[in-house]
Amino acid sequence: MTSCVVLFSGGLDSTTALAWALDRYDRVNALTFDYGQRHRVEIALARKTARRLGVPHRVLKVDLRPIGGSALTDPAVPLPRSLRPTSPGWGPPSTYVPFRNGIFLALAAAWAETRGLRDLVCGFHVADSPDYPDTTNAFVRAMEKAVRAGTKAAFGGPPPRIVAPLIGLGKPDIIRLGLGLGADYAHAVSCYAGAERPCGACSACRLRARAWKTVGLEDPLIARLRKEGRP
Amino acid sequence: MTSCVVLFSGGLDSTTALAWALDRYDRVNALTFDYGQRHRVEIALARKTARRLGVPHRVLKVDLRPIGGSALTDPAVPLPRSLRPTSPGWGPPSTYVPFRNGIFLALAAAWAETRGLRDLVCGFHVADSPDYPDTTNAFVRAMEKAVRAGTKAAFGGPPPRIVAPLIGLGKPDIIRLGLGLGADYAHAVSCYAGAERPCGACSACRLRARAWKTVGLEDPLIARLRKEGRP
Repeated sequence: MTSCVVLFSGGLDSTTALAWALDRYDRVNALTFDYGQRHRVEIALARKTARRLGVPHRVLKVDLRPIGGSALTDPAVPLPRSLRPTSPGWGPPSTYVPFRNGIFLALAAAWAETRGLRDLVCGFHVADSPDYPDTTNAFVRAMEKAVRAGTKAAFGGPPPRIVAPLIGLGKPDIIRLGLGLGADYAHAVSCYAGAERPCGACSACRLRARAWKTVGLEDPLIARLRKEGRP
Repeated sequence: MTSCVVLFSGGLDSTTALAWALDRYDRVNALTFDYGQRHRVEIALARKTARRLGVPHRVLKVDLRPIGGSALTDPAVPLPRSLRPTSPGWGPPSTYVPFRNGIFLALAAAWAETRGLRDLVCGFHVADSPDYPDTTNAFVRAMEKAVRAGTKAAFGGPPPRIVAPLIGLGKPDIIRLGLGLGADYAHAVSCYAGAERPCGACSACRLRARAWKTVGLEDPLIARLRKEGRP
């Protein structure tokens, strides 16, 4: 019996990771973090997608606003408008949330431990990696070691794994993988600005629009909004 | 200019770690976690000690009760009453909070990053280590690697360190070290039961009482309560 918890923000990447996990594991739980993000619309939509898939799903609160240092948790910091908001080597863009994935993986590890779920599955990938330190392979491997050493697993039993199936893929390949697995992208939001309808201007919207164009399909989120008369 | 943030629960160990850090670093901040612990009296007393020392101090909320799996966050789970609540090799006692120090270090790393503080100082020590996986040296070293890889430090600058100055010490030596550094233990509470006055029966109270007996001094917390007419 294989089991995992998926870090499920409700965005395009973690929706793909969830479809991937449902295809591979016998028992799948999904975990969404309510961390004070300005695009908190993703939480309600994550709930909707999980319900449609029949996946046990929980929203955990961890308010990162008192920590600050990011455009995603501080409305006073402007969102980047280009695809590469900073020059390479200049460090992460303003949408980087300090050590966010370290915090999320630590909470997910505790959650998994108390529920007897073995693996942590996440949608981190290389398109973000040059700018976001907490999505790299080096980070994932070190974090896995910390989870193995710092939980009950240290006393024996199967060691937990952190599985990042998308880490080597670009956005178009992530979409292709998800479509092949039947991923439902109609409620997967990416926009940082905070509405269900993409602003079209922030870096997340641009990256997503470019990916769907490369794939040669209409974005299912846009298609749904159009059908619902919200073009 | 050296700088650090101290994981400061308000207990005996982290009070010693704080005194140690104040002796070693130019700039020291203290961080306490309000995680839904049943002994939340430690938060108010941590505030008092930090104020007496003039240390910038912040309480961060991260509710671990929805995660569960511990007597410290679930009043329905009884507290252990002996010094070694489980047989060696049987895993952590009921007072173990799943991956708590992983969660705290991750949040502290984010906090330190946004405030330009380099090191994370914690009071983990060997007396707890056989039973608590998230206080061991293996865990600390892996977590340090994760913080270095997953924060802005990955782009350059001095790498953050996780410093556990008490890790090799037993409780009596921790007290001796602290007393030599002028640590103020009058408001440092250890009891799990939730009152300022030690219950005397839980494992934390027993370990502490034995340590002060070994050192040959009266516990300053008991002395203060007596002076205040609360024997």
